[in-house]
Amino acid sequence: MFVICNLICLNQILKNMSQKSVSCVLPLGFKACGISANIKKSGKKDLALFYSKAPCVASAAITINQVKAAPLEVSRRHLRASKVFRAVLVNSGNANCMTGIQGIRDAEDSAKFVADKLAIRKEEVLVSSTGIIGRRLPIQKIKDAAGQLAESLSPRGFSSAAEAILTTDTFPKKVSKKFRIGNSVVTISGVTKGAGMVAPSMKMATMLGFIFTDALITKKTLDEALKNALETSFNAITIDGCMSTNDTVVVLANGAAENKAITGNGKAAEDFAKNLKYVCVELAKMIVADAEGATKFIEIKVRGANSADEAKRLAFSVANSNLFKCAMFGCDPNWGRIAAALGSIPSGLSWQKLDIFLNKQAVFRSGKPVEVKNNKFLRGRDIDVDIVLNQGKGSACVYTSDLSYEYVKINAEYN
Amino acid sequence: MFVICNLICLNQILKNMSQKSVSCVLPLGFKACGISANIKKSGKKDLALFYSKAPCVASAAITINQVKAAPLEVSRRHLRASKVFRAVLVNSGNANCMTGIQGIRDAEDSAKFVADKLAIRKEEVLVSSTGIIGRRLPIQKIKDAAGQLAESLSPRGFSSAAEAILTTDTFPKKVSKKFRIGNSVVTISGVTKGAGMVAPSMKMATMLGFIFTDALITKKTLDEALKNALETSFNAITIDGCMSTNDTVVVLANGAAENKAITGNGKAAEDFAKNLKYVCVELAKMIVADAEGATKFIEIKVRGANSADEAKRLAFSVANSNLFKCAMFGCDPNWGRIAAALGSIPSGLSWQKLDIFLNKQAVFRSGKPVEVKNNKFLRGRDIDVDIVLNQGKGSACVYTSDLSYEYVKINAEYN
Repeated sequence: MFVICNLICLNQILKNMSQKSVSCVLPLGFKACGISANIKKSGKKDLALFYSKAPCVASAAITINQVKAAPLEVSRRHLRASKVFRAVLVNSGNANCMTGIQGIRDAEDSAKFVADKLAIRKEEVLVSSTGIIGRRLPIQKIKDAAGQLAESLSPRGFSSAAEAILTTDTFPKKVSKKFRIGNSVVTISGVTKGAGMVAPSMKMATMLGFIFTDALITKKTLDEALKNALETSFNAITIDGCMSTNDTVVVLANGAAENKAITGNGKAAEDFAKNLKYVCVELAKMIVADAEGATKFIEIKVRGANSADEAKRLAFSVANSNLFKCAMFGCDPNWGRIAAALGSIPSGLSWQKLDIFLNKQAVFRSGKPVEVKNNKFLRGRDIDVDIVLNQGKGSACVYTSDLSYEYVKINAEYN
Repeated sequence: MFVICNLICLNQILKNMSQKSVSCVLPLGFKACGISANIKKSGKKDLALFYSKAPCVASAAITINQVKAAPLEVSRRHLRASKVFRAVLVNSGNANCMTGIQGIRDAEDSAKFVADKLAIRKEEVLVSSTGIIGRRLPIQKIKDAAGQLAESLSPRGFSSAAEAILTTDTFPKKVSKKFRIGNSVVTISGVTKGAGMVAPSMKMATMLGFIFTDALITKKTLDEALKNALETSFNAITIDGCMSTNDTVVVLANGAAENKAITGNGKAAEDFAKNLKYVCVELAKMIVADAEGATKFIEIKVRGANSADEAKRLAFSVANSNLFKCAMFGCDPNWGRIAAALGSIPSGLSWQKLDIFLNKQAVFRSGKPVEVKNNKFLRGRDIDVDIVLNQGKGSACVYTSDLSYEYVKINAEYN
């Protein structure tokens, strides 16, 4: 599998890339922009619009949290009501969650204001919100900004849109990938935001991700490609084990690349799926790299489990252990906490066969501790945890961050 | 149910009590002691022995962590091999966990050294360890100390034994309860230790707890009373969501009170069960009150759920949310994080009917936020979270602590 073979931790590269914005462009036929509508007190950008003149097929996944924000309900209705979509409206600074009937109305209205300015049907607009829970969406501000938003749309607006969807993130997160389908060049570009309240639902998306492609592809094939990509990307990360109420991943495909339509299970579908997965994994890793208060980027691989599902549950048990996360913050090669986390969930684990490597240094081998001279090998930012069960052939890879003073500070003082 | 009606948070009282050691005595016929065998580098007490001359029936529960420490395996063998027990040997400073065949041999030997000095069979000794994982038990030190240990046994040795089982705990934890069974006065006394790596297994015990009673009771009735008591005590607390490898609760009953034997389901059995539950709940609360780095003692009640089991799962979801715990550390009445945690697990939750009270102050009522003027009501040490689902009749109560800088510090620097 792609992710499991990808042994190089791309964190530093990603950070650099985000600073340079190298080669991050919108696919053909898409425009975007990000502006400030004064939803955030800080005056920072807080309203993003993504638009395709040509109608798009859409594939989407939303949180399995039982408490779902209003825009998720409205987008769900639109996904049922329409077969084509042209725009995604995203605000930051307000989650429009637990806001009742009023929240639903506000989300509907925000879609309508934008649809009117773009001269499209409101059902062709998907909406998304992120920010504080339980406060009414400042709908008048969105109404007032709708005109400026539509006018600001530009094929070069990807970066400003990527900025406008952020909350406590410290850098914008975007990825582009170009590849060939037959004789056509196809582009997939995505933006994401994360930072806190990030945990796997194991079945659906877990934060905000907006992905656009000029590929011509059938809805069914796009759905399958997204479902497949989620498992090893947005559903393979955890920062604090807290599942959000607003998580959404949306992919829009407008066909502007004029490739031969991608459908079924052929090579073109495989190539598309592989590249969509690449974009999702890179975006997901950026979320972990920008985790609230994180000082470490941790990749946890579990190999030799009885199944891929078991491997993933074991990897997540370690990734969500506060004791493990604190040990990593302290550069402490504490394999006992890894073993305790592995043991805490039902599995075929036999610790007598267990190997644990931290940054390729064995710390536990065939059921016995390995003495390590010092903790130098854990002092860098990237930590690679390799857990080998020597039981079966199941493997998985998840990404997480450490637990630091700064995480506590950010989340104790947030309001 | 007892715990749910117990609205007063006993934290301060407990702390005071622990300092004064008022009325904490061993039941009739029991002796105990705690000494230093130099297992801990600090030279603090690290070896405790509890002993009854009269044979006891025993009831025990151990961790469901798949990685089980050697003393748990050995105690399990003894519980199968013998019907009566006379001693519990506990060391701190070393967990004797993931130590292989050697660890099993060491745990067996430690039981034998003590049995020889007490002139009893080694199968009548239960063993328990707590401390660092993966290092060999310093068995020679225990052998050398066995004589002193047996000689130090005293009916007034409860306090020194309570000290000797501690690791990062900041105060010893012990509770005594006297009550009548017919014309006899019966005593139940327990000690516990906790501090970190404490989380519910939902089915079994979750830290070290040693409880002694002079009641005359059948094993079956004792088993039922313990099973029942665990659900609302040791299995209703979480500090960091990390399940330990060494968790054990043991109850020994020696019959020295000479009451009419307690058996079956009558009033005597009910009274005994109620008082055992009291002791377990008080001990469990002390663990939370002494949680690593904690600045808050948090009681989370969920009422009006579809079942008691659902209520408990919801309460634990909140209790284990790092975002909620950080908010409590920051005295932030952030009901959004409570709602997100509730929503993150499958249940019949309808947030439109939800009420949330923090220290009796409504912060969310019938699906709507309630404005609060300031956070004064959250600045004390005790926080009472009352979540009312208004769906059914299921309720539960769990106890937890906040997540502080100090927790991170303790667990990043531990080695």
